Amino acid sequence: MTPTRILIAPNAFKHSLEAPEAALAIQQGFQQSRLTCVCDCFPVGDGGDGTGELMIQKLNGSQITSRVNDPFGNPIDASFGIVNEGQTAVIEMANASGIRLVRADDLNPLKATSFGTGEQIKLALEKGVSKLVLAIGGSATVDGGTGILRALGIRFLDTTGQELATPEQLSDLATIDTSGLDERIRQCEITILCDVDNTLLGPDGSAAVFGPQKGATPQMVQQLDASLARFARIAHQQTGIDMTVLKHGGAAGGVAAGLHTFLNAKLVNGIDFFLEFTNFDQAVSQADLVITGEGSIDEQTLQGKGPYGVAYQAKLRNLPVIGLAGKIPLEPSEQLNDYFDTLLAIGNGPTDLSNALASTRTNLIRVATQLGNLLAQINA
Amino acid sequence: MTPTRILIAPNAFKHSLEAPEAALAIQQGFQQSRLTCVCDCFPVGDGGDGTGELMIQKLNGSQITSRVNDPFGNPIDASFGIVNEGQTAVIEMANASGIRLVRADDLNPLKATSFGTGEQIKLALEKGVSKLVLAIGGSATVDGGTGILRALGIRFLDTTGQELATPEQLSDLATIDTSGLDERIRQCEITILCDVDNTLLGPDGSAAVFGPQKGATPQMVQQLDASLARFARIAHQQTGIDMTVLKHGGAAGGVAAGLHTFLNAKLVNGIDFFLEFTNFDQAVSQADLVITGEGSIDEQTLQGKGPYGVAYQAKLRNLPVIGLAGKIPLEPSEQLNDYFDTLLAIGNGPTDLSNALASTRTNLIRVATQLGNLLAQINA
Repeated sequence: MTPTRILIAPNAFKHSLEAPEAALAIQQGFQQSRLTCVCDCFPVGDGGDGTGELMIQKLNGSQITSRVNDPFGNPIDASFGIVNEGQTAVIEMANASGIRLVRADDLNPLKATSFGTGEQIKLALEKGVSKLVLAIGGSATVDGGTGILRALGIRFLDTTGQELATPEQLSDLATIDTSGLDERIRQCEITILCDVDNTLLGPDGSAAVFGPQKGATPQMVQQLDASLARFARIAHQQTGIDMTVLKHGGAAGGVAAGLHTFLNAKLVNGIDFFLEFTNFDQAVSQADLVITGEGSIDEQTLQGKGPYGVAYQAKLRNLPVIGLAGKIPLEPSEQLNDYFDTLLAIGNGPTDLSNALASTRTNLIRVATQLGNLLAQINA
Repeated sequence: MTPTRILIAPNAFKHSLEAPEAALAIQQGFQQSRLTCVCDCFPVGDGGDGTGELMIQKLNGSQITSRVNDPFGNPIDASFGIVNEGQTAVIEMANASGIRLVRADDLNPLKATSFGTGEQIKLALEKGVSKLVLAIGGSATVDGGTGILRALGIRFLDTTGQELATPEQLSDLATIDTSGLDERIRQCEITILCDVDNTLLGPDGSAAVFGPQKGATPQMVQQLDASLARFARIAHQQTGIDMTVLKHGGAAGGVAAGLHTFLNAKLVNGIDFFLEFTNFDQAVSQADLVITGEGSIDEQTLQGKGPYGVAYQAKLRNLPVIGLAGKIPLEPSEQLNDYFDTLLAIGNGPTDLSNALASTRTNLIRVATQLGNLLAQINA
């Protein structure tokens, strides 16, 4: 049977196309092919920057915009979404605390804080939500979520009772005063979509692995790691929770660890939550071919990235899955071949990375056209 | 209907894989895929080096090896094939006069001659053939076929009656003495498979376009062009045939022009003749999917290259055609898409040319596996 209902569910192609653009390019390819088909564009996110927006759009949420502090305390208008009849706020952390808000030269994770995202959470509470969904990819911060916690009323103090604000200052942390914590947040179910598994500290921790892309020099990485370690030690003393052992704890500069410890936030795999939250299953049930994709698809993809989540759902229904990527392994493993019936690199020949990135859209259109033509012809 | 009888008919992937190797790689990919299929490997050639050998193999020819002169007069053992119950000799010009016989540093088209190929033709005549098929790709010579003609008894003389041998000496050509031409060759039907359309002289001629890859400096190109022009002028005076206007005349350094003028050789498109000679039509009639390929497939392919010939035959029977290449256009034309239902670049991501060339076999295996898995799943 020729597949005619095509579900197009790519992740973003990093440094090149957002997920919705990638989906549209693939759709355009199929539409200009000789295959008679109906395409359903369902761009996905696995926790990276943009994941929150995709959820808000998919659930026809309303946007709430307010003036908050950016990572360095400058005023910025940032929005979040309200979905499920006002019950749930979906907050894209990068909107108020994102790396994309800051010029590369101005990045400085010793001073950047997640305070603005906390202000958005506070506003959401005022709107009466009982659930919070936080997509934390693309943050400019390595503050352990202390900025968010401060916005919600927690105070970080040194031995003299002086209030501390930045990761740099946290090295002097002596006491965490939770007495002022906004009561409403305790009633709120918080879910954090994590796009990485890293724990909080050490060589695989948030400072060492993600600090550099947020502007940290090697020395700053050491300072940040020390501040987070102090934060973790004091928190452990006061709460009994050891945030250093948490899987995902290092996500978004430790926001996952801090919010789990003080707000009981649930840390979940990004794509699994995304797909459930957006009723992906229903879309899959109406498809007979699923296309997914990402800038790179390889063995790591099977560790819980977007295309894997999509392929997993499709395979539950024994649907054919095509994976499109800029880069794939020269020799894919059996397991990759199990989830992706076809795994294709979309390039048109030997070229360098920047050329390839610039051609992603055209490449996707072409490959989708070629696939559509093949499917049309095979059963002609 | 799932295609299960797959005809695998690639051209060579230049600088990387011979056509038979490419076919085997594609076959291996399908065989290790989840598609239950029978593969028929039918590597093709469009006149380039290797085309003659493919024809001999396909027709189960016998090989005749003899000692002849290489392009520079050194002894070499070279073979050709006899097919069709002894009636037809298939001669691969590169076996006796090929660029691959000479070290790059030793290439010198002012001195290289096609004499050795002429010796093979003479031997074929002694074996009693009535037809000669000449595949002329990959020659090291720009001698207008004068070497072949000399081996068959024609003499090229200067004003003093001195015999001339090399292209360098042809600048002194005054008379062409055909009185000694082997009589048997006149009864022989000669067909030359041309892989290029170029005429003999000028900026698009054999010296200017192909001289450099045979070792010609810009000055040598001028000398070669002048020698060929003189050859053409004298030949025109004596035979009334103007070899300078011949399409394909510049193929193999003018062998096509010279042999057409003096031996009435038919100049034909390489792939069309190849496919007819090897009964490709019969193989197509038993296939329900055709795979072809070449190092590069683009608009020029439609000018008569191997993959086009294969696709053309397949399309006469309305079969699906998949084209695999190292490089394809970013945006293929309608016409390319008409002949190739699917046109895929086989690379696995951004890379440089040398890496891509080194990975051709692995890439072909992977892509064929992915295609097989897709076909298997689509109709599962």
